[in-house]
Amino acid sequence: MSLRTVASKFVELCRQGKNFDVMRTMYEPNNVSVEGDGKETVGQGPVIKKSEDWVADKTFHGETVADPFFNGATPDQFAVYFTLDVTPKSTGRRITLQEVGVYTVKNDKITREQFFYDGDH
Amino acid sequence: MSLRTVASKFVELCRQGKNFDVMRTMYEPNNVSVEGDGKETVGQGPVIKKSEDWVADKTFHGETVADPFFNGATPDQFAVYFTLDVTPKSTGRRITLQEVGVYTVKNDKITREQFFYDGDH
Repeated sequence: MSLRTVASKFVELCRQGKNFDVMRTMYEPNNVSVEGDGKETVGQGPVIKKSEDWVADKTFHGETVADPFFNGATPDQFAVYFTLDVTPKSTGRRITLQEVGVYTVKNDKITREQFFYDGDH
Repeated sequence: MSLRTVASKFVELCRQGKNFDVMRTMYEPNNVSVEGDGKETVGQGPVIKKSEDWVADKTFHGETVADPFFNGATPDQFAVYFTLDVTPKSTGRRITLQEVGVYTVKNDKITREQFFYDGDH
């Protein structure tokens, strides 16, 4: 597959709400996930667990994903812009979170994801 | 200034439509600009010229800029998501372009910008 094919599949599944299918089928076993504070989580299992924990204390209303985006100087990467419509159970207040994700792909699998955002997510 | 202060100033000026003020006052003289196809333009003057040429064949209706975003693993960078509402003079058809920009800051100046998008911009 080309980077573009991987990126399109990624976005399509996310738009169907199948984010965990993405993690289970498109992540390399040693995938590295880097949150906004710079903290790295290493390994497909721990990365999935991190997302399960994140979802567990929220009501998830939906997300938007644009678009994917590319840059020829980094031909193994694509970027997306997410908005996440959630109600944290701790506050009960519905909010929209925004973030940019930069994904690195090798041999058709996502090997690294780095999220840019502001504040707690 | 902190990275956050530079990023906030960048976004504030862009939201006021002062993109060329950003380039004139916030770019380092040897700034590098990388377009979606990977092509690099080097130097503040050539980078400004590139944008002048880009604007020249369009009617520019406005832009949105979110938000800026950060990641602690790359503490000299911020990311933004742009939508650009333009009518290319060649087609007369109004379109919305989207892109992610990743900016690198050193000594309070923008030294590099890398744009991720899809298709012609």
